[in-house]
Amino acid sequence: MMKTVPNIRIDIDRLMNRIEALGRIGAMPGGGVCRLALTREDGEGRNLVTGWMRELGLAVSIDRIGNVWGVRAGEQDGPPVMIGSHIDTVATGGLYDGNLGVLAGLEVVTCLNDAGIATRYPVAVAFFTNEEGSRFAPDMMGSAVHQGSLALDTALATVGIDGACVADDLAAIGYAGDVEPESLCPRAFLELHVEQGPVLEREGVAIGAVTGVQGISWTEYTVSGISNHAGTTPMAMRCDAGVVAAKAIVAARETAAHLGGSQVATVGALRFEPGLVNVVPQTAVFTADLRNTDEALLREAERLVEEAIQEAAHAEGATVAARKLARFEPVAFDDRLVSLIEDCAVRQGNSVKRMPSGAGHDAQMFAPNCPTAMIFVPSRDGLSHNIREYTPPEQIRAGAQVLLDAALALASAD
Amino acid sequence: MMKTVPNIRIDIDRLMNRIEALGRIGAMPGGGVCRLALTREDGEGRNLVTGWMRELGLAVSIDRIGNVWGVRAGEQDGPPVMIGSHIDTVATGGLYDGNLGVLAGLEVVTCLNDAGIATRYPVAVAFFTNEEGSRFAPDMMGSAVHQGSLALDTALATVGIDGACVADDLAAIGYAGDVEPESLCPRAFLELHVEQGPVLEREGVAIGAVTGVQGISWTEYTVSGISNHAGTTPMAMRCDAGVVAAKAIVAARETAAHLGGSQVATVGALRFEPGLVNVVPQTAVFTADLRNTDEALLREAERLVEEAIQEAAHAEGATVAARKLARFEPVAFDDRLVSLIEDCAVRQGNSVKRMPSGAGHDAQMFAPNCPTAMIFVPSRDGLSHNIREYTPPEQIRAGAQVLLDAALALASAD
Repeated sequence: MMKTVPNIRIDIDRLMNRIEALGRIGAMPGGGVCRLALTREDGEGRNLVTGWMRELGLAVSIDRIGNVWGVRAGEQDGPPVMIGSHIDTVATGGLYDGNLGVLAGLEVVTCLNDAGIATRYPVAVAFFTNEEGSRFAPDMMGSAVHQGSLALDTALATVGIDGACVADDLAAIGYAGDVEPESLCPRAFLELHVEQGPVLEREGVAIGAVTGVQGISWTEYTVSGISNHAGTTPMAMRCDAGVVAAKAIVAARETAAHLGGSQVATVGALRFEPGLVNVVPQTAVFTADLRNTDEALLREAERLVEEAIQEAAHAEGATVAARKLARFEPVAFDDRLVSLIEDCAVRQGNSVKRMPSGAGHDAQMFAPNCPTAMIFVPSRDGLSHNIREYTPPEQIRAGAQVLLDAALALASAD
Repeated sequence: MMKTVPNIRIDIDRLMNRIEALGRIGAMPGGGVCRLALTREDGEGRNLVTGWMRELGLAVSIDRIGNVWGVRAGEQDGPPVMIGSHIDTVATGGLYDGNLGVLAGLEVVTCLNDAGIATRYPVAVAFFTNEEGSRFAPDMMGSAVHQGSLALDTALATVGIDGACVADDLAAIGYAGDVEPESLCPRAFLELHVEQGPVLEREGVAIGAVTGVQGISWTEYTVSGISNHAGTTPMAMRCDAGVVAAKAIVAARETAAHLGGSQVATVGALRFEPGLVNVVPQTAVFTADLRNTDEALLREAERLVEEAIQEAAHAEGATVAARKLARFEPVAFDDRLVSLIEDCAVRQGNSVKRMPSGAGHDAQMFAPNCPTAMIFVPSRDGLSHNIREYTPPEQIRAGAQVLLDAALALASAD
């Protein structure tokens, strides 16, 4: 299918201009961007991007959860090839996370318009409401509603960390649309995104062909021991909740090493009670974050960590209670589309690497319903959700060019 | 020397009446006692005990840091055999910690008075200001000033957790005495105290003949790693401060097992930053509390833990900063006095065990300057600094009898 793609080129200056213009909305004095979902700043950002969609001649739709998409007609009617991501940010966001995927989509459309290319199928560019989940839980809210994995009414009734309600704030910023969210299932879905991790940069690879999104398992463990005087209680008579937690952290690390591959394991939160220098901890509360691209291996990781914690607790005479905080199965992207991304990258002379995504993305909501893939570009120092988030223009250009070529191939395919 | 001791008996009811009367001052509605040093309640408790001293015919002195002692004259003048402890409590104290040692001293004097016994040397009963250190740091303040290891002016200028000043509060409760603290070095010093640990109870032993006080080493470690996304950062690229802390906790436990004997090791406080489920900890701050009766072994424990932390940090690519919070060398009590305690215990048909003290006591301030020893009685469930602190009257009687016999032997010795 690649042979039919004309050789048109991304204009990186035009793309960077749009990225920087959007980044001025919610820009923070010390650097970085704060455009939390459905705030006034988010509304302004939406107006800017929707205005660009209209300037480009796209037919704009706004659905009831505030997702926005603009469609460029094809020679045939029917489902479009959709390019999408999000334009909300975390409180300490940068210019690229989400925004890149949407604005690169607009750059693709601009290129098609300028070259006068009529694609066989329509091409759409979309941004989805509240991908970050920083103000309203859950994250990926708009794409989840759009693809039917979250009920619209539930999403609209969500109350945020500041007491605001999704439905009210959608209306306040003028994005309570009337299109039913599930009215559109694309022909294919593509998302260009910054990696948010260090792999591409460390390995000197330009393009990540994302194979899927890791499954996630979050568990909170509460270890109950016995609080005792650190001086007068002999070691043999202790029931130290902190020692159990420490062994669990070491076990999580060893589990990741043992399983290898994409397995990661993190204990990010931990607190001791009473938390005094001279008192044996009575209680230790900690979290385990386990991720793997393979559901069976993720379950094995869960089992190994759980077993190690129980063993450590048993040795100490302590008890453990577990509470699941989150559990998502891995998402696999469409293998033909992943190969297409690889092909497009290589044709442009880029190094490319098949890799999973360790973070969640709107694309994963589309994967069960239509052929879906993602393109990653490097994140400097692996930083994301950080005001120092950065990807050099040349790397952005390379990623956007792969997006253009892949979208054009899909929109021109038989 | 034991043959010269007449067979006089502790009156446990009289002793318990005094313990309970003192415990009503500062009694809390739900149980337990709160008589923080130099508060109004401490003042009332002092008045009660000082009144009893005067009723018993003791010559009462109050020194400039508020230590109080009452002397029963002997056949000869000169330094007394001193029985002492403290009557301040922690915020959630019980009836026995400190109070027992002072009131058992009064019971000893009462017995001597009732039996009409004239000892060769004077016998004194003392209570020392602010042993607990809950309101003013450091703890053992009064006995430290009394024995010259803390400057009087420094102690008087100490500002407490509530902003109060030692000198002001001493005056306010009427215990800013005019006797120079260092005016009295006893002939010998004895302290009866509850164990505050579980050893005697678990082993079914009635009397602890305390051999000394463990040396204490408190260090705060700050591990600096790199905060990263728990999903997108491969294991090999992590610098996880939490893993270093976890390995340190396990190493502290292993160090105690390796050294055995009296060595204890506790990580009681630990916090992660940023402390989020999906973020690799950037910083881990934790404390290590190491104690041993042997200075060389305590240094070895410090070395082993430090080495393990450095090794864990090196493996992770993290850095560690250490800050000493406290460091006291072990205190050894007088071996002849420890043997005397054992002898007195056995003569009364008690089981007895030589053991170190894991907690600090006023007695340790006297140990460098005069023959000193302590007597422990069991603490139910090892509880102390707890409103459920409890020792049955029969066990208190046994301990007080050993105190009486030992004091009488010392006051009658050649």
